[in-house]
Amino acid sequence: MSDFSGKKIGVLLSGCGVNDGSEIHEATLTLLALDTAQADIIALAPDAEQAHVIDHAKGDEEKGASRNVLVESARISRGEIKSVKNVTASDLDGLIVPGGFGAAKNLCTFAFDGTNCKVNPDVEQLIKDMYAAKKPMGFICIAPALCAKVLGDFKPKLTIGNDEGTAKAVEEMGGEHVTCKVDEIAVDEGNKIVSTPAYMLGPSISFVAQGITKCVNKVLEMTQ
Amino acid sequence: MSDFSGKKIGVLLSGCGVNDGSEIHEATLTLLALDTAQADIIALAPDAEQAHVIDHAKGDEEKGASRNVLVESARISRGEIKSVKNVTASDLDGLIVPGGFGAAKNLCTFAFDGTNCKVNPDVEQLIKDMYAAKKPMGFICIAPALCAKVLGDFKPKLTIGNDEGTAKAVEEMGGEHVTCKVDEIAVDEGNKIVSTPAYMLGPSISFVAQGITKCVNKVLEMTQ
Repeated sequence: MSDFSGKKIGVLLSGCGVNDGSEIHEATLTLLALDTAQADIIALAPDAEQAHVIDHAKGDEEKGASRNVLVESARISRGEIKSVKNVTASDLDGLIVPGGFGAAKNLCTFAFDGTNCKVNPDVEQLIKDMYAAKKPMGFICIAPALCAKVLGDFKPKLTIGNDEGTAKAVEEMGGEHVTCKVDEIAVDEGNKIVSTPAYMLGPSISFVAQGITKCVNKVLEMTQ
Repeated sequence: MSDFSGKKIGVLLSGCGVNDGSEIHEATLTLLALDTAQADIIALAPDAEQAHVIDHAKGDEEKGASRNVLVESARISRGEIKSVKNVTASDLDGLIVPGGFGAAKNLCTFAFDGTNCKVNPDVEQLIKDMYAAKKPMGFICIAPALCAKVLGDFKPKLTIGNDEGTAKAVEEMGGEHVTCKVDEIAVDEGNKIVSTPAYMLGPSISFVAQGITKCVNKVLEMTQ
């Protein structure tokens, strides 16, 4: 087991729950892999209102309900969390973005607007600065769509699994999409970008865990 | 790796977030261990209002806020969840209760009332029926306090780690408390009850994962 103690890895969360925030298993498995490798975890989220709130038992929107992305993300990080606005690339050695609809609703608006989506300005700045500083980043599940939108000019190689519509959108935004199995990763060595399909493919947490562990370990390796 | 396919294991959730619901890491690691062993997961929660809502970033109560235990628990289980009222011991081969304050606020009132706590009647019935049917149960973190309250007549051997105050309360409710390390389990073979300290001890998710994986695997072994 490698020892990455001292490496500061940002985990960019987007709420707490697959339908309106970070996918909880993906986020937790990211933290597990980082902690197992003895990296320092810095949980981040935008201090902003969620796009909406979904009743996860019924699948319906809770009309009139409102929750803050950072406050809900703190449930996953057990309280310790920083506003993404207050963190710069110089504070981090790497960055990982778990999936869940929050990545496509609260970090950017891809779930609503597709390739014409807008990106939260602080999230966009951090990703661009990490790229400019040549620091590695990992994108899980649907989060590669965010990466394609922000870094499309650099033609990042990315995977969202094998969904044709989403893969096409990733390419339209400038990404190079590659198909990938749930227990594997897509690696763009030149751009220092790693991605894994996770629940874009499923079928269940033990499969998702394998790809996420590889994704985290590859990002850590690239910090060296 | 053992194959427990066909074994139906209930995971009794109590909301979503360490301070007012299920501890998210503990719940997710329980699901991971069960899925890795190929067991069938049946997520359960009481269909009832949470005791309160805590802002996990600040640690303060959100005055006037109200959330439903089952609806929030569905965030952890990705939608699939049953009301504990609609599940009986005959539907399950084993039951596991992750920790988090929700286990001591929403499943019972131990966090507010100590040894004089009340237990949700449907939760109490299910635990008593599982015990009567000689089916194994696992209790994680603070959840052993719930077990002691419900099954104190049978003097269950339990651990909550090494906190003296909580250990004393467990004994006052009828349990036999044993100290235990975070990566280990306490096993009561006669009563078919397994427990592990998890975040009662910490220090971090990779340590907690070791005890929870052992707890889940021992419960599965006891189903045979």
